[in-house]
Amino acid sequence: MEDVRQYMQSIGKQARAASRLMAQADTNAKNSALLAIADAILHSSATLITENGKDVAAAKANGLDAASVDRLTLAEKTISGMAEGLRQIAQLADPIGEISDMKYRPSGIQVGKMRVPLGVIGIIYESRPNVTADAAGLCLKSGNACILRGGSEALHSNQAIAACVRAGLKAAGLPETAVQVVNTTDRAAVGELITMTAYVDVIVPRGGKELIERISKEARIPVIKHLHGVCHVYIDDDADIAKAIRIADNAKTHRYGVCNAMETLLVNANVAAKVLPELCKIYLDKGVELRGDDASRKLVPQMKAATEEDWHTEYLAPILSIRVVADLDAAIAHIDTYGSQHTDSIVTENYTKAMRFLREVDSSSVMVNASTRFADGFEYGLGAEIGISTDKIHARGPVGLEGLTSQKYIVLGNGQIRV
Amino acid sequence: MEDVRQYMQSIGKQARAASRLMAQADTNAKNSALLAIADAILHSSATLITENGKDVAAAKANGLDAASVDRLTLAEKTISGMAEGLRQIAQLADPIGEISDMKYRPSGIQVGKMRVPLGVIGIIYESRPNVTADAAGLCLKSGNACILRGGSEALHSNQAIAACVRAGLKAAGLPETAVQVVNTTDRAAVGELITMTAYVDVIVPRGGKELIERISKEARIPVIKHLHGVCHVYIDDDADIAKAIRIADNAKTHRYGVCNAMETLLVNANVAAKVLPELCKIYLDKGVELRGDDASRKLVPQMKAATEEDWHTEYLAPILSIRVVADLDAAIAHIDTYGSQHTDSIVTENYTKAMRFLREVDSSSVMVNASTRFADGFEYGLGAEIGISTDKIHARGPVGLEGLTSQKYIVLGNGQIRV
Repeated sequence: MEDVRQYMQSIGKQARAASRLMAQADTNAKNSALLAIADAILHSSATLITENGKDVAAAKANGLDAASVDRLTLAEKTISGMAEGLRQIAQLADPIGEISDMKYRPSGIQVGKMRVPLGVIGIIYESRPNVTADAAGLCLKSGNACILRGGSEALHSNQAIAACVRAGLKAAGLPETAVQVVNTTDRAAVGELITMTAYVDVIVPRGGKELIERISKEARIPVIKHLHGVCHVYIDDDADIAKAIRIADNAKTHRYGVCNAMETLLVNANVAAKVLPELCKIYLDKGVELRGDDASRKLVPQMKAATEEDWHTEYLAPILSIRVVADLDAAIAHIDTYGSQHTDSIVTENYTKAMRFLREVDSSSVMVNASTRFADGFEYGLGAEIGISTDKIHARGPVGLEGLTSQKYIVLGNGQIRV
Repeated sequence: MEDVRQYMQSIGKQARAASRLMAQADTNAKNSALLAIADAILHSSATLITENGKDVAAAKANGLDAASVDRLTLAEKTISGMAEGLRQIAQLADPIGEISDMKYRPSGIQVGKMRVPLGVIGIIYESRPNVTADAAGLCLKSGNACILRGGSEALHSNQAIAACVRAGLKAAGLPETAVQVVNTTDRAAVGELITMTAYVDVIVPRGGKELIERISKEARIPVIKHLHGVCHVYIDDDADIAKAIRIADNAKTHRYGVCNAMETLLVNANVAAKVLPELCKIYLDKGVELRGDDASRKLVPQMKAATEEDWHTEYLAPILSIRVVADLDAAIAHIDTYGSQHTDSIVTENYTKAMRFLREVDSSSVMVNASTRFADGFEYGLGAEIGISTDKIHARGPVGLEGLTSQKYIVLGNGQIRV
């Protein structure tokens, strides 16, 4: 335990020192490093697969479920995907040093803002080893140092990827300690990482709700977090029904296990009879289990009865809860009560109701006539994302490079003093 | 204790409910409330002075020091200043609902951001009762509800101001519970306020370092904080000496007890002999105690020897530490080691050194050829400030209306789904 503490403190100290160099690194050095890491990953693909094989074998021996083993496995395609992701990050504009809003003040000084890195970012994630490359790339491009703590079941894979990252940093003349992957499965390492206020500026946990809740509770460092996604689509009585059915189908069935999938469908009572039978046929044909309120079940008898618990639930599975609501106010009230401030969408052709929904729904992404599945860094044009924040402080929604930065004020004077 | 807990929970619940109404309030209603509060304060000036008199008498009886009694006292001028401050906030642009960066994506959706209130803001402050009006005004204009917890020595004054705020909110048709001033001196109220995660979105502590450290440590809610201001001026060897002397004089002597006053002066060795004797004469004439390193003391024998402790110290008093440094790197290294990431200024005519200082000094305000005293919401054109943040997450530097808001993503579609 004391060893782990010392180990983490030493990682923290090195990360802090590296962060100062990374903050000054120019765009070319950062991009060179990203491309060099991508190359190293491709050239090491045999090693990566061998090391990953150890993790996969151990996971199977330990009886890890098939889905988790699948997430853990590095195939050739995952490996080339990591390299491709890093090359895409190299192509993004460098956010650091960006100066904005420079304005002259009556005193004669000119005041504005300069974008700067946050410093040291601690990222805690679960089984997917490709997160190691993604997170390293985003932190590097945004001028931050990072400490990555992957799942213990992926230790060999993550260390093999870490070696590629170090090689790339070195090749570009950047400090190898700018990206450090914690090399211990001791859980005490996490406890230390989230309380090293002197060395870590922000924690980004990626994983299940339990992991994130525990980290948020115990961290002494600000956490950019995404708790859960209970996303809604509200089909208004002024909806274009064809759009409504297309969007509600896509929001639920495009992918089930993702945070931006719809979990509850709200339908205006005036159009429920027009919408639900046709839409629910699609769901039932795709094997989606439906749980509805009384009004919905009258229209679609195959539905089970939804419980209070259902409205709160992020299924991450082919299950959908459905409720008929009287009007826009009832829809917003439902989202306010049961939602998770992640992503909610209204389908309507009515201007005033669309504007009200946009303004009044307090979620990180609010949409009109679009599938909730669009709530994603790539879809939004951020280039990549480190996660989706359901917090309100600092970053909200998909967090890309800019979410890993801060802005300081800069003042340009010519000898001005306060009078 | 249990009573205080219930009392605070009930305040929290009401604040949360009010925050939803405030988020929808239009600009006109918010401005009307601000003007009505200003009127109520002016009309109640006799009552305010009477109530304040109770606090002042108690403070004197309790042996509070003269400076604290001074800060506590509401004179006619302080009262008209509060009203004027509220009118100025009414004139500021409404940040809420601002839509920015709307861009079409290849999928056909249009994505951008909408500025929204944070929700419920808890503000904990010490003796100055005028903070009650300022903080209420800023929270109101930014569409937030707030819970204000002033110093126990100002309880009568704060409650009298709170009555004016409620009257103004009521006159404008806004919920009176949008601004609640905690009406108990029980310290348990603070402990409750900073841990009511369900009802409070952010805590802003204003006061001494001890208060802020305690709150940061115990809060379970994000804190926008300003720990201390160890601000530096670095006089480079390419400085215009006249500007350097004017700025270094102003930064230290314009006001002593403020966070943006210079506490340590760094002078390049090549110009120390040209700068220090003349500048130190000004300081000594104004009664500033000087504490220097050996090199400075050789030039100005009246200086005491500075200790390691001095470089870390925010004097908030007519005391200045002075150090001669070899070059820009040494100046930046000193600031990095001893500074508080608040405000630092370089005096130089050299372009490259100015740019390096701006980029490399990691403080909330970094200046060239200007007095550190400009680090202030009014001077920066924010209109007013709730405080100065030395954090990196969310808001950095002077925090005005925008620092009390967040941005959500909005997506405008026309039936788009993800493929």
